[in-house]
Amino acid sequence: MRGAVLRGGQMLYRDDIDEPVPGPGQVLVSVKACGICGSDLHFATHGAEMLESMADIEGLPSMSGELSLDRDVFMGHEFCAEILDAGPGTDTHPAGTLVTSVPVLLSATGVDMLVYTNNAVGGYAERMLLSAPLLLAVPNGLDAKHAALTEPMAVGLHAVNMSRIERGQTALVIGCGPIGIAIVAALRLRGVETIVASDFSPARRTLAATMGAHVVVDPSAASPFDGCTPSVIFEAVGAPGVIDDVLRRAPTGSQLVVAGVCMPPDTIHPLYAAAKQISVQFVFGYDPEEFASTLRSLAEGEIDVAPMITGEVQLTGVQQAFADLADPERHCKILVTP
Amino acid sequence: MRGAVLRGGQMLYRDDIDEPVPGPGQVLVSVKACGICGSDLHFATHGAEMLESMADIEGLPSMSGELSLDRDVFMGHEFCAEILDAGPGTDTHPAGTLVTSVPVLLSATGVDMLVYTNNAVGGYAERMLLSAPLLLAVPNGLDAKHAALTEPMAVGLHAVNMSRIERGQTALVIGCGPIGIAIVAALRLRGVETIVASDFSPARRTLAATMGAHVVVDPSAASPFDGCTPSVIFEAVGAPGVIDDVLRRAPTGSQLVVAGVCMPPDTIHPLYAAAKQISVQFVFGYDPEEFASTLRSLAEGEIDVAPMITGEVQLTGVQQAFADLADPERHCKILVTP
Repeated sequence: MRGAVLRGGQMLYRDDIDEPVPGPGQVLVSVKACGICGSDLHFATHGAEMLESMADIEGLPSMSGELSLDRDVFMGHEFCAEILDAGPGTDTHPAGTLVTSVPVLLSATGVDMLVYTNNAVGGYAERMLLSAPLLLAVPNGLDAKHAALTEPMAVGLHAVNMSRIERGQTALVIGCGPIGIAIVAALRLRGVETIVASDFSPARRTLAATMGAHVVVDPSAASPFDGCTPSVIFEAVGAPGVIDDVLRRAPTGSQLVVAGVCMPPDTIHPLYAAAKQISVQFVFGYDPEEFASTLRSLAEGEIDVAPMITGEVQLTGVQQAFADLADPERHCKILVTP
Repeated sequence: MRGAVLRGGQMLYRDDIDEPVPGPGQVLVSVKACGICGSDLHFATHGAEMLESMADIEGLPSMSGELSLDRDVFMGHEFCAEILDAGPGTDTHPAGTLVTSVPVLLSATGVDMLVYTNNAVGGYAERMLLSAPLLLAVPNGLDAKHAALTEPMAVGLHAVNMSRIERGQTALVIGCGPIGIAIVAALRLRGVETIVASDFSPARRTLAATMGAHVVVDPSAASPFDGCTPSVIFEAVGAPGVIDDVLRRAPTGSQLVVAGVCMPPDTIHPLYAAAKQISVQFVFGYDPEEFASTLRSLAEGEIDVAPMITGEVQLTGVQQAFADLADPERHCKILVTP
């Protein structure tokens, strides 16, 4: 079958990928839409360093040991798909049901994270396997293209939940890429009354306002801290230097939620944070309940993700889409529609 | 009068310091004991860089603007003293009362932090001024030398309070200098059932055990994370690299409380913290209620600070004591007894 894989740092179109065969507890699905995540772009360019850093980390289940960049890597973890078939003895939704799922594949041999893996095809392909117990039927006639954004929007909800921000507090969101936008949407849904969003890109500031920011700031014109005193600052840039800049400028006693993952080592001044007793919560992913709750919010129209979708490509266009996503003026989220 | 001041990076004994005169709301006290704090040592060596870094910080009341290293700097903020006299119209405890106070001097012209200042004599002197409204009488016949440790022990209580650790959780304290020891004592008082303390120095490990640690670890022999899975890790070293090492080794979902202030810039891997969703709470100082509560704990014998006091010097010996404190095998806390 057809799909796009990561090989030698590039996304390569292939038409000879082995057809996946569902085992017990698994279903075969036809991918309807799969969002391209910034972390996929980053992994394509910096995968080796990332695996090295991950291997250094203690207290985590090893991922890197099982993943080789010398073999094709399957990616695509923001998917919505239609059920085609089920494995032996697997009770699931009828064929034709539109579903999504947290990007995890359970099998007899273990657990595959459908994020970066050599073992199981992800969402950048015609068909893939999912785990029957993890499937969520897409409710309310929600468009598959919108349902595909459940995953990144759940990341935003998780960051907001971890912050424990209350409605009367001021939130500052730094960086309005997909994760920053997802945070803005989750803050708005939570009823936070003052949401300030900061991005260098005019297009992204406009999008942030559309998705729920009350105030947008161009950090090249003025410090986002000049006009507001945020209780919680969400870092959704993930570039070196941003954390330290926030620590230097943030109000005393404020909370920094780091949602953008800065891959290289980064320099901070602990004194900045100590003098103001700042707390820094690093966040990652979401839990299954947050994923399900996000799908409901999309299906019930509480969050409209349509303005975030700025492009759509075939499987042959994935490599070009990875390049195009570098321009924040043009793009927020590009969907692959196999 | 006699005292020791910071001049040109050295502690200088002087016998010609102006006699302090209490204004309205102030009292003149005779210093009975004043602990030497690690931050004083650091300020003596790195004061200029510290003031520069502090000046960069936004959202703080400016301190550095008022403090010049070209003039004598008064230090000594861990004091216990006896009331001699009161300023005009000042209602306070009778002369002879043993008191302590948060290191703040209120005056008609403003607020002086009695930590590093050109304006008001601190605890490294025969006499000093304190603010009548802030005075706490030392209860229960507590020794002045022990009451002088109220301040550093309050720093430990504050760090533990900020962590919100519960009794059943495991705490790991990294670094058993005075702040690490104060944290151990506060954890023990809170009833935390598993307190692990780590330090390269055998003497400090022994002291940590005496002050309440259930387990002590020599990090040169084994990672302190090998034998325990702490929910909260207290960083009380304040040297570059320690935060990153904790982020790399700490368990998923754990909390790092940074109580040691690392003055130079420091390098971290945000990925380590993101992958495990670690929260980092930077802490500093204490609030007045924590200070008062610490004094009560000392006076009621809930915390015995006697084992922490490893030396005592006159005002002429302050410079030598600063040098001696570099050796963790010999010293924890040296008191200046004018």
